[in-house]
Amino acid sequence: MAQIVRSLRWSKGILYLLEQRALPFKEIWVKCDTVEKTAKGIEDMTVRGAPAIGVTAAYGVAVGALKCRAQSPSKFQKDVLKAISRLRKTRPTAVNLFWALDRMERKSRAISGLSVKEQKKQLEQEAVHIHREDQVLCAKLGKNGSSLLAKCRNVLTHCNTGALAAGGEGTALAGILWAARKNKKLHVWVDETRPYLQGARLTAYEVAKARIPFHLITDNMSAFLMKQGKVDAIIVGADRIVANGDTANKIGTYALAVLAKAHHIPFYIAAPTTTLDLTKKTGAEIVIEQRSSLEVTHPQGIPIAKADYPVYNPAFDVTPGELIRAIVLETGICRAPYGKSLRAALNKASKG
Amino acid sequence: MAQIVRSLRWSKGILYLLEQRALPFKEIWVKCDTVEKTAKGIEDMTVRGAPAIGVTAAYGVAVGALKCRAQSPSKFQKDVLKAISRLRKTRPTAVNLFWALDRMERKSRAISGLSVKEQKKQLEQEAVHIHREDQVLCAKLGKNGSSLLAKCRNVLTHCNTGALAAGGEGTALAGILWAARKNKKLHVWVDETRPYLQGARLTAYEVAKARIPFHLITDNMSAFLMKQGKVDAIIVGADRIVANGDTANKIGTYALAVLAKAHHIPFYIAAPTTTLDLTKKTGAEIVIEQRSSLEVTHPQGIPIAKADYPVYNPAFDVTPGELIRAIVLETGICRAPYGKSLRAALNKASKG
Repeated sequence: MAQIVRSLRWSKGILYLLEQRALPFKEIWVKCDTVEKTAKGIEDMTVRGAPAIGVTAAYGVAVGALKCRAQSPSKFQKDVLKAISRLRKTRPTAVNLFWALDRMERKSRAISGLSVKEQKKQLEQEAVHIHREDQVLCAKLGKNGSSLLAKCRNVLTHCNTGALAAGGEGTALAGILWAARKNKKLHVWVDETRPYLQGARLTAYEVAKARIPFHLITDNMSAFLMKQGKVDAIIVGADRIVANGDTANKIGTYALAVLAKAHHIPFYIAAPTTTLDLTKKTGAEIVIEQRSSLEVTHPQGIPIAKADYPVYNPAFDVTPGELIRAIVLETGICRAPYGKSLRAALNKASKG
Repeated sequence: MAQIVRSLRWSKGILYLLEQRALPFKEIWVKCDTVEKTAKGIEDMTVRGAPAIGVTAAYGVAVGALKCRAQSPSKFQKDVLKAISRLRKTRPTAVNLFWALDRMERKSRAISGLSVKEQKKQLEQEAVHIHREDQVLCAKLGKNGSSLLAKCRNVLTHCNTGALAAGGEGTALAGILWAARKNKKLHVWVDETRPYLQGARLTAYEVAKARIPFHLITDNMSAFLMKQGKVDAIIVGADRIVANGDTANKIGTYALAVLAKAHHIPFYIAAPTTTLDLTKKTGAEIVIEQRSSLEVTHPQGIPIAKADYPVYNPAFDVTPGELIRAIVLETGICRAPYGKSLRAALNKASKG
């Protein structure tokens, strides 16, 4: 039987995070019944993936609100804002984190005239709403993505873009999950995604749990599979998509897109409209974060090369829009010219 | 000061192997003063790389001969053949191993009429010759390869094709070493070469020892470097080259060749003529060995994914000749059409 993977659970005012660092070997649920424990869960990467972090932070505020012993509404609000302030410091570059905390703060300020009891209730509801909205968003991405994969036999994906990265079923992997429910013969190539191994550690776990046939490969094997006609489509997530369709995503994405083109294989991006940054015209404007050399020299903390070797370790690369056959959003599927289609999608999303 | 890396040393009738499994962290020399210890050194991968294995095996026969206490030439020869027989069982698919052992056996049979003392001397000499010939071969490959890299600023290489894989300075990496001696600004991109990490563990060690500027990268980063104009040439080794130039080499080679073409970067192969297999017309005739899934799920023995996950782990891939700008051999540089140029090179080698 296929099992459902979730990155977090909310039960009786307590947040439980699946300890992703222990996957795929152990399934440990970390009980977060204080703001501090929730903040640590984000900081220590017990939970990762932008949407999952946003939902976790919102629940972190709810945990703090429900635990708060303040009697007066003003003292209560002060404590809630303190909790928000603490959670803001967990991951400095996580867009969804700030988005979720801003929303919780707006809610808190909007209901400050109500009783403490009523405020607690409404803050919990707001966090639950944020979670539900992400689930609905993921479902739309899954449905839209699956429409592109309906006739595929072998789909390749990179990094982790599934339930472990989100409040719902994820983005690109959601499309694969939806497609696999209809097409029992769908087989997935999961690349390990060096240096941080999200594919080997997390995506393989999710796909195995869903009982979808798959094989794990190293990142340098995909080209040889493409040459043998064993890849029908590639679908990956996105960190940021700019006006012309240029897309920043996990390092290794660009290589896959070039290889896909050389082998006449469609290459798709799947992401929520919150990933769109149409203020930037092209990918040249995207700043690429360089990460610690230890991720390369010490995978999972194990030395494979000397710690003082010079290492180049960009977190992301940029794939030109012209290599992307389609961009799957919750609003629908965008195709080139992206300048027009992405703008229309963003307008639709802001109205919806 | 640049330091010279060697995979093995021969001193006073004893073979010393550099323990490659301990690299780059410890430099341990394993003393092989018996046939059995030498055989274990090959079996346990203390030494690896086809040419290095061949030289090791030849010295293993010499070790056995020098240690042999037989008084009569016939008993002596019997012991030598027994040593050869033991060494044959170490690595079943290593072409150079059998080539070197065949040659030691021919020598042994040719000198069976001589005194035991004289036979010992000549068998040691034969092993030393095999070693020296490999050093000369590597030097020719180094010189020829460097002529293609003379104007390069950034060269990328894959797997380990240096001194650790050979009796001399190696094949593809020898070209980089020779080029770097003249061009102090040469910088090397060393890809880690999953799954077995020969790049991260061995090539980075060799390049660092040679004091050549380098950066270690994961295999999925090279495309992004190419896009940024940071790769001027790619040079790799070969496991087998067939009549039309199609080349089997470490998995990941084909991806590099396709990416090189897409970015208009020259892609070179460097290998001895012993790698040529002109009985095969195209790469389609090459059988690709599948290796243990544990290499992928347990790099360096450390679990990153479950041991029972399905894994695709081909040892090699095949790069079409049309993606190869030139093939560097000890006889010179071959270019397309390879059907003609490789045949000519082989004729030249057999005459030399």
